[in-house]
Amino acid sequence: MSGWSILRRIIFGAPLPTEQAEFQRLPKILALPVFASDALSSSAYATQEILLNLTLAGLVGMRFTLPLTMAILVLLAIVTTSYTQTVYAYPSGGGAYIVASDNLSVQLGLFAAAALLTDYVLTVAVSVAAGIQQLTSLAPSLYPLTTHLCLLVILTITLTNLRGVKESGTLFAFPVYFFLASMYAMIVWGIFSHHVLRQPLHPLNQTIPAATTVVTAGLLLKAFSSGCAALTGVEAISNGVRAFRPPESRNAAVTLLVMSALLGGLTLGISYLAQVGHVVYTHGMDQESVVSLVARVVFGDNVVWRGMILIATTLILLLAANTSYADFPRLSAILARDGFMPRQLANLGDRLVYSNGIILLGVFSSILIVAFHGHVDRLIPLYAVGVFLSFTLSQAGMVKHWFRYRGKHWQWKAAINGLGAVTTAVVLTVVIVEKTLQGAWIVLVLIPAIVWIFQRVHAHYQYLRSQLTMIGYETEPLPPHTVLVLVHNVHRGVMPALNYAREISSDVRALHIEIDPTNTQILKTRWNQWVQDIPLVIVESPYRSLVGPIVEYIRQVRIDHPGHLVTVVVPEFVVTRWWERFLHANSAFLIKMAVANIPGVVVTNVRYYLKPPQANGSSSQNLLYGRNPSR
Amino acid sequence: MSGWSILRRIIFGAPLPTEQAEFQRLPKILALPVFASDALSSSAYATQEILLNLTLAGLVGMRFTLPLTMAILVLLAIVTTSYTQTVYAYPSGGGAYIVASDNLSVQLGLFAAAALLTDYVLTVAVSVAAGIQQLTSLAPSLYPLTTHLCLLVILTITLTNLRGVKESGTLFAFPVYFFLASMYAMIVWGIFSHHVLRQPLHPLNQTIPAATTVVTAGLLLKAFSSGCAALTGVEAISNGVRAFRPPESRNAAVTLLVMSALLGGLTLGISYLAQVGHVVYTHGMDQESVVSLVARVVFGDNVVWRGMILIATTLILLLAANTSYADFPRLSAILARDGFMPRQLANLGDRLVYSNGIILLGVFSSILIVAFHGHVDRLIPLYAVGVFLSFTLSQAGMVKHWFRYRGKHWQWKAAINGLGAVTTAVVLTVVIVEKTLQGAWIVLVLIPAIVWIFQRVHAHYQYLRSQLTMIGYETEPLPPHTVLVLVHNVHRGVMPALNYAREISSDVRALHIEIDPTNTQILKTRWNQWVQDIPLVIVESPYRSLVGPIVEYIRQVRIDHPGHLVTVVVPEFVVTRWWERFLHANSAFLIKMAVANIPGVVVTNVRYYLKPPQANGSSSQNLLYGRNPSR
Repeated sequence: MSGWSILRRIIFGAPLPTEQAEFQRLPKILALPVFASDALSSSAYATQEILLNLTLAGLVGMRFTLPLTMAILVLLAIVTTSYTQTVYAYPSGGGAYIVASDNLSVQLGLFAAAALLTDYVLTVAVSVAAGIQQLTSLAPSLYPLTTHLCLLVILTITLTNLRGVKESGTLFAFPVYFFLASMYAMIVWGIFSHHVLRQPLHPLNQTIPAATTVVTAGLLLKAFSSGCAALTGVEAISNGVRAFRPPESRNAAVTLLVMSALLGGLTLGISYLAQVGHVVYTHGMDQESVVSLVARVVFGDNVVWRGMILIATTLILLLAANTSYADFPRLSAILARDGFMPRQLANLGDRLVYSNGIILLGVFSSILIVAFHGHVDRLIPLYAVGVFLSFTLSQAGMVKHWFRYRGKHWQWKAAINGLGAVTTAVVLTVVIVEKTLQGAWIVLVLIPAIVWIFQRVHAHYQYLRSQLTMIGYETEPLPPHTVLVLVHNVHRGVMPALNYAREISSDVRALHIEIDPTNTQILKTRWNQWVQDIPLVIVESPYRSLVGPIVEYIRQVRIDHPGHLVTVVVPEFVVTRWWERFLHANSAFLIKMAVANIPGVVVTNVRYYLKPPQANGSSSQNLLYGRNPSR
Repeated sequence: MSGWSILRRIIFGAPLPTEQAEFQRLPKILALPVFASDALSSSAYATQEILLNLTLAGLVGMRFTLPLTMAILVLLAIVTTSYTQTVYAYPSGGGAYIVASDNLSVQLGLFAAAALLTDYVLTVAVSVAAGIQQLTSLAPSLYPLTTHLCLLVILTITLTNLRGVKESGTLFAFPVYFFLASMYAMIVWGIFSHHVLRQPLHPLNQTIPAATTVVTAGLLLKAFSSGCAALTGVEAISNGVRAFRPPESRNAAVTLLVMSALLGGLTLGISYLAQVGHVVYTHGMDQESVVSLVARVVFGDNVVWRGMILIATTLILLLAANTSYADFPRLSAILARDGFMPRQLANLGDRLVYSNGIILLGVFSSILIVAFHGHVDRLIPLYAVGVFLSFTLSQAGMVKHWFRYRGKHWQWKAAINGLGAVTTAVVLTVVIVEKTLQGAWIVLVLIPAIVWIFQRVHAHYQYLRSQLTMIGYETEPLPPHTVLVLVHNVHRGVMPALNYAREISSDVRALHIEIDPTNTQILKTRWNQWVQDIPLVIVESPYRSLVGPIVEYIRQVRIDHPGHLVTVVVPEFVVTRWWERFLHANSAFLIKMAVANIPGVVVTNVRYYLKPPQANGSSSQNLLYGRNPSR
């Protein structure tokens, strides 16, 4: 095993046989943490992004936090109901790409796929950035290291996924339930102590900035579209229905409803506490997260409680980032199998993971982190476009689905999905209008570009198919075969090449490029002594180039013997120590490169392996051979 | 012609045919400038380096400038006389390497060669640094750019030499005679006006630094060994006797004497003017060169005269650097032909120059410039070791020569060369003792290291010779030949490879690595339909690796059929646009790399060239083919 193999094994583990690719069925209590981390973790930044916009209108604006959260919860309810139907209609998994291309068109399916892929990349970037923000809220001295910490986390997640993580429910269960328990404990305790015990909330030492604007419809729409980040991840369960125990669809639907309810409760609770606690969150003031500020409102400066909340939040955010490492490579592999992405993305690596997809995701999300300095508030505006585009296409596909397959109560079901489609389409429009200038234009350019690439790739594979099809193929008689052996000198390194040429054809000639005429004479003498049966062709090279005259001669042979198959045999001897390579011109390599590009010519390299020199070194004795070693 | 070829042609010119390598015979008046620039230019820094040391002992020390110069002139006379005899004894060129290895031993010849090679590299570095120092003396604002200017000059000289410069006497004549004329004019005018016209010399505004030491034997030896840099280049004529018109040896000897006389006069004149003008030259004070200071002493602040002197000095220094570009590649080529340096150094490039040697010289001298910041005073201590080592070995070789071949007055001749050998050996010892701590240790380590490399290289070529010799070679009967074709699928890209296999052997089998068993079934069906005559071997790959099972199977074939020749045919299709490469796994390349390392196996790549797709693009139509393009 080479050094590289050993290193690989230490980092990534031993290769796994294909039959170990198993499929685990999960009970609801374990399925929830596997699929919900992305959605639930959104509560960590949804309220924060609403506040970020409302604070511009000062104290008056901040009063709209709770109403806007309510509006988002209504949207969440509509989307959840709509997706419940997808879970029943696509028990084998109904991602937006499949639903849209099945029911609408391949083109729209590709738009959904492009939206999903950008979405997955952003999930990693946003979740990691938000996770690190919780940490820097706890330890502000780490703040200058934000970008580096984010990249370190992405690298770690990428390497872990290349090694392969079993999506075992138990691994996910602890951080998700720990997060739910601690967050709900904080919310309940906050409300209880405030309203029942009548204890005052802890005041924050924040100065409320002067309003720079009044509350307008535009401001509210902007805040609303920022808060829509709360809905990211809701669709996850619809992709993974097969992971549930039977009855799969029913169990998945129940889990989806529970998840949405938990998410709604969390977001509402955080928004409520933020509003009554007068939490202020502005761009670039202090970077402390809203979750951290809310924890201060409830627990005061008690670091233990706030620390627990923030660590729980960090953990679930990193889990959310990790889910994209399953989704992105899986969707890429589906697209690769359908011929829209490079085939290599469909290869299972030796650890049974789609290694290429994992690496791509790590690279793209790292680029985003670097470009936006790991700043969650600057990444969020890019986020919602992809999410709501895939929501809209998926629901619209479902409407078409009901019209095509009908069944019991199909009009009712179509109406529900229709409501979902229309609502998310309206939200998508709002998001595009409000967020384009804040960075969403990047996504608006990117998604069509990705679709264009999908189509170019597909066209290439189709063209390849048309070029390689056996339809109309006719067998041809074997053509005559001419073999050319390139010789520089007569020595043991050349003999195997000559033998090989004799082996594969009866029409063999040797080709010598003459650079120094005195050598040619020696060569001819030695040739007559040792070879004889193969004719030796001497070609002059007035400019001392090896490659040019060889290529020229081969072209001439091809013209003189049209239809002949030509094989060029290049003899090469292989040295045993690395530094010895520098003592040889390696012209064989250059010749191979040049000749390999002549169509209809096959290049064959016949190697002669030198025996390793004796350890005691025969240099002094060998000096007797004199000054002119032969080549 | 490719873009690269066109660029090459613009920079380096069109290739030259071998017959243009001609040899020019020069009259003495033109031979002098060709061979003398290196020696004559030494006067530009010899006095300077003496002063640099003497100034440490203040005004008292500076009075020793002229006596030390005299001592160096005596040394010059001895070396010149000694070399005159080499010119007669080796009319075809008697470089130190040839004289020492002919007469002493190969080992000592290699020491001489190593000394010469380091010497040539130092000539470039020192001459360029000294040349740029003249320029910065004229325009002090350029001083911070010293290193960059030096590197730019080296790059220019390297490129010019790669293009190939005819060493035509006329090209060299102008700068050399211009330098001689202007320098002697300055010296004569200085002495004449001072002693005859009794005009005072122009005072310099230099403060004479306080003496930090008294005048000791050590200080004088140090100053003497620094001044020995004056002798560099004296040996040049002995290498090039063949370039003279007949009688070659006589003409060469006369030219050598004239050159030495001119060099001696120059050095003496500069030292005299420096001493009577109280020129101070210290490390790092001002960087103005001694030539410039002497010109100020003679001409005052007249920029025109001083400018002429400095430009003439710069020109001859750059010419001196340029002569190494003929010497270094020529000696490297001789060493390469003798098997002590890599063979590539003996290849004449398409412009009839030893391109590899030229590039090496450019690289090494640039490294020196960077390491010593283009500072001539810091480079000089490295210089004399190599020069005097080769002098000593060469003279000692001549003594041995006379003892072996005798002839008329041989004892007398041996005595002259013996005096030269002993004198230069003493100077070498002085230089080593005085200069080791100032940087000469680098050369003292380098020269034995280079000799060690020479011997390693030689041992390799000898070992190669012993491995490749035809002595004892016995022809063997052609072994049976098994051909394996790697197939992934049945399509038009595979058919040429199967045909090729049928062409070269009757024992052909196809090898398929099974990664997905469902594909295997399709493959078998298509195989029966389209191929039939070739047996298809299916090998499972539990870890989804392609390369591993292929290598394993081939090894098994080699074990099962000992003595069989095995050819592995790898089909490959070639795409027409660069980006299309990324859509294919390029596994053919990895397979070739892995299989090529199995001894006794020949790898052959049979390419299928795809037709370029039509410009109108058939992507939309091709979408009809459905989702699973075949591979």
